[in-house]
Amino acid sequence: MRLPQIAPARLAELLSGGGSLPVLSEKVVYRGWRNVIKRTVQFPNGQPVSFDVTDAPPAVIVLPWCSRTKTVTLLKEYCPGVNEKGMFTLVAGLYEAKHTSVEDCVRCETEEEAQLRGGTLIPVMSSADGSMPGAKYTAQRFLPYIVKDATPVSDPRPLDDDEIIVPVHGISVEEAVWIALHGRMTSTGCMMLFLALHKLRELKEIE
Amino acid sequence: MRLPQIAPARLAELLSGGGSLPVLSEKVVYRGWRNVIKRTVQFPNGQPVSFDVTDAPPAVIVLPWCSRTKTVTLLKEYCPGVNEKGMFTLVAGLYEAKHTSVEDCVRCETEEEAQLRGGTLIPVMSSADGSMPGAKYTAQRFLPYIVKDATPVSDPRPLDDDEIIVPVHGISVEEAVWIALHGRMTSTGCMMLFLALHKLRELKEIE
Repeated sequence: MRLPQIAPARLAELLSGGGSLPVLSEKVVYRGWRNVIKRTVQFPNGQPVSFDVTDAPPAVIVLPWCSRTKTVTLLKEYCPGVNEKGMFTLVAGLYEAKHTSVEDCVRCETEEEAQLRGGTLIPVMSSADGSMPGAKYTAQRFLPYIVKDATPVSDPRPLDDDEIIVPVHGISVEEAVWIALHGRMTSTGCMMLFLALHKLRELKEIE
Repeated sequence: MRLPQIAPARLAELLSGGGSLPVLSEKVVYRGWRNVIKRTVQFPNGQPVSFDVTDAPPAVIVLPWCSRTKTVTLLKEYCPGVNEKGMFTLVAGLYEAKHTSVEDCVRCETEEEAQLRGGTLIPVMSSADGSMPGAKYTAQRFLPYIVKDATPVSDPRPLDDDEIIVPVHGISVEEAVWIALHGRMTSTGCMMLFLALHKLRELKEIE
């Protein structure tokens, strides 16, 4: 399936009603792995309304895809939120100043976490900057990529001390979907898995 | 596509390596719309490692689907994280004590936010409790449902004072995918949209 052409008038209708609200104040109320910002904006009815908003650098999120075996690489990762070692996740990491580009960040994270090097990078988004907004209350954005046909390495970059990650190669699409639907994958992982499967269908890599 | 049967030995292999880590301490370090908990666990190497974990009640997330017109209802919602009124989101809300059941919560939120009443509830997950884990650093879970063929109401339950939400009915699957891929939908919305489209294909509602 190719992306459809949508008539300009319909697009304008769909995309109407945007714009920001006046920001009355912003205050960092918690500093930690993610910061929490208390943001007060002026609502259209004139009233001030406050929200807790989290912020963090953008995060790449990556599905490694092997076109020969038609399989993906997922991670088994320790997830502190549910305190569980056996959660399935996707390669992900913060895009920071140490990276020379988004592509460099995608390659570094794929090597560190999935023990795969090289391959072809396929941006998943059609947005101008390749990014996806985060959830309703977060300013963090995602940068979703498929890495096609990377090569296994035996000497990957080391993991951070606060990570427990085991890459699992050779997972079929059906197995990945089973894992997701049975609640064994994080919501961020599910987001990227199903989004990437859509893209792989568009690219005719899968049916 | 129906969910495949995966051989028990392969499933056991895929699901191995789970379990929790010993929790050494837990402390609420920020109380707000979401709480932030500093959780310290003992890593397999014996070292204590601390994480910031957010917690909140489980959230239902809902895609209303009209089988006659083959269209969905999305929301245009003010999102404080990006301070933008024109973001597309899906019906969602916290499952709280005031609800008599998850299904009651799904119906209330669908009426409040999408101005749709009734219809058939279709759980999307195959997990025992119908839930999906949240992101890596959150303990909040999702409860994803499709609501099929609900009826528009002219007297919906009122929105909360801190919400700006306009339901948009009659969006085709292609339009919804366009919106998502062009960065106009939250990541949580994208997660649910593509997951629900998978389920609708499984149910042969769409190709």
